[in-house]
Amino acid sequence: MIRLFANPDHALQNARAELAEGLLKPVVERPERMVRILTALEAARFGPIETPADHGLDPILALCDPGYIDFLQRAWALWTAEGRGNDALPLNWVGRGMRRVRPRHIDGLLGYYSFDAGTPITATTWQAVYRSAQTALSAARAVSEGSRFAFAGCRPPGHHASGDTFGGYCFVNNAGLAAQALRDAGADRVAIVDVDYHHGNGTQTLFYDRGDVSFVSLHADPAWEYPYFLGYADETGAGAGDGTTLNLPLPFGTRWDRYAEALDRAGRAVAAFAPDGLVISLGTDPHEDDPISRFALTTEDFGRMGRVIGAWDRPTCVVMEGGYDLASLGANVAAFLGGLLDAAR
Amino acid sequence: MIRLFANPDHALQNARAELAEGLLKPVVERPERMVRILTALEAARFGPIETPADHGLDPILALCDPGYIDFLQRAWALWTAEGRGNDALPLNWVGRGMRRVRPRHIDGLLGYYSFDAGTPITATTWQAVYRSAQTALSAARAVSEGSRFAFAGCRPPGHHASGDTFGGYCFVNNAGLAAQALRDAGADRVAIVDVDYHHGNGTQTLFYDRGDVSFVSLHADPAWEYPYFLGYADETGAGAGDGTTLNLPLPFGTRWDRYAEALDRAGRAVAAFAPDGLVISLGTDPHEDDPISRFALTTEDFGRMGRVIGAWDRPTCVVMEGGYDLASLGANVAAFLGGLLDAAR
Repeated sequence: MIRLFANPDHALQNARAELAEGLLKPVVERPERMVRILTALEAARFGPIETPADHGLDPILALCDPGYIDFLQRAWALWTAEGRGNDALPLNWVGRGMRRVRPRHIDGLLGYYSFDAGTPITATTWQAVYRSAQTALSAARAVSEGSRFAFAGCRPPGHHASGDTFGGYCFVNNAGLAAQALRDAGADRVAIVDVDYHHGNGTQTLFYDRGDVSFVSLHADPAWEYPYFLGYADETGAGAGDGTTLNLPLPFGTRWDRYAEALDRAGRAVAAFAPDGLVISLGTDPHEDDPISRFALTTEDFGRMGRVIGAWDRPTCVVMEGGYDLASLGANVAAFLGGLLDAAR
Repeated sequence: MIRLFANPDHALQNARAELAEGLLKPVVERPERMVRILTALEAARFGPIETPADHGLDPILALCDPGYIDFLQRAWALWTAEGRGNDALPLNWVGRGMRRVRPRHIDGLLGYYSFDAGTPITATTWQAVYRSAQTALSAARAVSEGSRFAFAGCRPPGHHASGDTFGGYCFVNNAGLAAQALRDAGADRVAIVDVDYHHGNGTQTLFYDRGDVSFVSLHADPAWEYPYFLGYADETGAGAGDGTTLNLPLPFGTRWDRYAEALDRAGRAVAAFAPDGLVISLGTDPHEDDPISRFALTTEDFGRMGRVIGAWDRPTCVVMEGGYDLASLGANVAAFLGGLLDAAR
């Protein structure tokens, strides 16, 4: 049994252009992605797709810097006050030797709170972000209330966002909200496993020094792939979280055999952590046809991945992250969720 | 008497687009700037415009991180190896919570070594940068050899670049090279005074902890203006350089009266430091018509500025930085240099 939640306002994040390869290119994280996912879920007949409840701003403020959340809500007004009507992007940032001070001009604020120039803020971004967060919170509540599985159709995604920084199409960390919600509902330990092609730097940052939430990620080697500045194997947690972070960077061209080995290692780490709940950051960009990624998984492999993770036998909340090949996206998500359900039968 | 040097390869930095206001806009730091400056200098009959000598790579490597200089030389080859032919821009950077590790992919390297997305690297950027640096070194040598004044027609400019970071149209810090060259030629203390509209964050960073080179800057308040993350009044130097940095941030709309007060304060700091040589980072973007700046100086004010600084009575090397109003740019530079010469008569 899986409960499915989708963000009815996802299409409100519909930005035009991201900086990539030195050019402003059409944003690959676009509304059509969620249309494809929902169409596939309906066809797979897993069950009804529910509208998430509104859990309010408090869970977001508990995980994030309130100044950052205030900025996200006011950014568009500050941007348009400068006479600008196109999507907002940062232009510079805190380089080496500079100070992490919070400026007052919108251009400075955008640089202060971001880590890339590919995550535009539009007039309706905050509403989409807020509703995406509620979607994750609703899925987590379903798991807390006894559902073996739940799926949060989050858009925009969240795993690159920490508590005070946006980037990688992400603004608020939906998986982190789900993990915290499971904790708040009584789980002593929660494991987050991130299978998106890109390292979930925001999630890692949020929980790096916490002993109650572990973070395990399979992703492209950051020496060669975005986000470049986090996700290396030697990052293993700090303080109370020492040993609770596990990064498994993988080379370009990774196929299922190599991926499966890393997933087994992730499974052993999860078993050792013995969590009461599991959050999966699901990106389908490891698929061989993904336009911005360089792994070589197939749709069938996502079914295998679901069966492996389902066999870990934990109450599991699946939170949607990336995956940009529109043709295979829906089938990949459906295959993954089908694999989870197969394993639980 | 002033000796004039111009970079014959300045036009090799001719990039197409910078990220600004969320759009890729034509780069405002363009070759026509130097054409306007040289035309005005010729008309003013200050003397011949000399071709700079080649002082080699050693002075650059002495001031900069060799890994960074190697990157600048190889960046275009790494970029085109990815199949890209347009100008190179970074796309993401070391955000809060991320690690300052040096990645291997060109996109990661661009983010690692930069602090904005407005400073494109082209096929011929390095050659222009190298020759711009030689121009500053030649002007410094002229001062060391006894010329009361020298002017370095540097393009690309340099004051935003530190020893390992590019941004703000700058790659190598020409003013810093000139200051170090004066030191190497026997000056015990050198003061750098930066009158560009934007804070010279790179120069400040290079000399922040040095007691032999002071840095004084008049610029738009970084809380409201680029580069946002350095240039605040409470930055006064560190270690051996404690007290040798003076930032004088000024509000939008600043006119000559207020500017002159700040310049007097700068002069008192220079007098107290008692340098054997002076380097002026000359930006004409405080001019009222500058397209990306918000001060309100006139061409006559640049003459006044030159007379004030000339009266400080130090061997002075003027290094060209910004200034983007093509109509007034040449006249502003000529007025400034004319003011220097007037004061020395």
